[in-house]
Amino acid sequence: MEQYVFGADIGGTTVKLGLFTQAGEKKDVREIPTRTENGGAQILPDIADAIRGTMTEYGIGQSEVCGIGMGAPGPVDANGWIDHAVNLGWGKMNLKESLRQLTGLPVAVGNDANVAAFGEAWKGSGSGCRNLLMVTLGTGIGGGIVADGKILTGASGAGGEIGHIHLEDGEEEACNCGSRGCFEQYCSATGAVRLANRLLAEKPQEPSVLRDRTFTCRELFAAARDGDPIAVEARGRYGEYLGKGLAVCATVLNPEIIVLGGGVSKAGTLLIDLLKPSFDACVFHGAKGVRFVMAALGNEAGIYGAARMVIEG
Amino acid sequence: MEQYVFGADIGGTTVKLGLFTQAGEKKDVREIPTRTENGGAQILPDIADAIRGTMTEYGIGQSEVCGIGMGAPGPVDANGWIDHAVNLGWGKMNLKESLRQLTGLPVAVGNDANVAAFGEAWKGSGSGCRNLLMVTLGTGIGGGIVADGKILTGASGAGGEIGHIHLEDGEEEACNCGSRGCFEQYCSATGAVRLANRLLAEKPQEPSVLRDRTFTCRELFAAARDGDPIAVEARGRYGEYLGKGLAVCATVLNPEIIVLGGGVSKAGTLLIDLLKPSFDACVFHGAKGVRFVMAALGNEAGIYGAARMVIEG
Repeated sequence: MEQYVFGADIGGTTVKLGLFTQAGEKKDVREIPTRTENGGAQILPDIADAIRGTMTEYGIGQSEVCGIGMGAPGPVDANGWIDHAVNLGWGKMNLKESLRQLTGLPVAVGNDANVAAFGEAWKGSGSGCRNLLMVTLGTGIGGGIVADGKILTGASGAGGEIGHIHLEDGEEEACNCGSRGCFEQYCSATGAVRLANRLLAEKPQEPSVLRDRTFTCRELFAAARDGDPIAVEARGRYGEYLGKGLAVCATVLNPEIIVLGGGVSKAGTLLIDLLKPSFDACVFHGAKGVRFVMAALGNEAGIYGAARMVIEG
Repeated sequence: MEQYVFGADIGGTTVKLGLFTQAGEKKDVREIPTRTENGGAQILPDIADAIRGTMTEYGIGQSEVCGIGMGAPGPVDANGWIDHAVNLGWGKMNLKESLRQLTGLPVAVGNDANVAAFGEAWKGSGSGCRNLLMVTLGTGIGGGIVADGKILTGASGAGGEIGHIHLEDGEEEACNCGSRGCFEQYCSATGAVRLANRLLAEKPQEPSVLRDRTFTCRELFAAARDGDPIAVEARGRYGEYLGKGLAVCATVLNPEIIVLGGGVSKAGTLLIDLLKPSFDACVFHGAKGVRFVMAALGNEAGIYGAARMVIEG
């Protein structure tokens, strides 16, 4: 009798749910809306319903499911407690225990960025790699660490929050986290736009297609590709910060691979060219052998990693 | 029949060797010189001799020894390979296999700073703690990471080399590692003296007991305690860098405890007062709960950690 595993990845607008065989083969993937009203009270019941629905559809009995893995956007400790997931409305609660009660199935839970890294280290571009850092360059910066084949959870589930390492002393604006000078303030998609806007203000005489309008990170990179001097320089500063921040992480962790994911990584391997000079200048020589690769699983990394948590138990 | 374990810690001038029971009780500790001549060819044979000598003295037979744990000053990968230990004259060699052949006993090897952290997390001030960062503030900065109860070795044995995280962009002098702006350049004992000498040069009019002489880090801290304004300000800058560097590490790792060890830590808990303001300003809120403690095992942390590697195998 075939054994199955579910992998769920809770995002701010949708929950992605994957059905996998025990061997790691993906059989189904679906999305349900994340209902954040009423303090997010419906999120776990909705997931439980979607799991039951999938089981019915595929004719899978309760005894054929080994368990449910789940990634959630917040710090999740080793016992399954999440401590405030602002985007979902959740306060402190035990996700592992709650979903177990709703489904009667064993549950494993982790922070979404860590779980995505665990997925990339399994079926993605870090496949088979035991020491990996994944950085997700989106609206913010997410980080996930796999050390010796396991997720680095940390004492309270905040392991791998590299978006908030301190990178710049002189910063006057505050990060979303309240600190000043976080990695995320320069190297998220929002950060890239900020760097370009600062440069526009520093050089009021320099013409640029980006001037006097709002623009996205994607548009900034497009303008740089077309040779706009402000955009080229902003993109250069972006790469410099990215290399410096990742060098700090690599010096602490000595990963074999750094996986670049998230919206900004759509710029492709150009990103590696941009970050390499400052990375090489700042990283400890003992950690220099790290390889940079682009994420391969896209927004399915989370469901893969979640399923893997159950399979490798 | 009682079972025994050896723990060895190889330093640049001496090798410390401990005999432990399988239960972790220390029965004997001795030191032998580290003979670095001839590319350090005698170091492992000397350790093997010292182990045999100890066994004879205590009437311990080969079958009563579970194994030998060893910490070495360089990157040691998961298979026991060390890749250049400059202080000892070693090139690339397999320590685990070499010592096994010399003794006929199972061997476990790790980087000395990581092994010391593993010891403090066992019988020292981090006893029972599964997520710990140890920083050794000496001539350089050593770092050791315990994540989920295991040493964080990294891909090539350079995990935890926090002394070389990039902390300062404007630095003009090079670190021993070749980079510029490493943590160690500010927060080792040597770094503290450097900060004070820079301050003396910045303020040529300001009188100070440190002016026009050479001084040690210990003398700098003594002068600060006596109220010398330059020394007080230098000590403040030292604390600021220390807090910032440790905040970066804590944001990546989310440890439960940070253990402060090494010569500079003789300044005691004052060090915690000095580093706390910048630590709190820079660390990610999810990692803020970390406790700072002073190392408890002194220069025996290494032999404890080495023995633990065998015991927890």
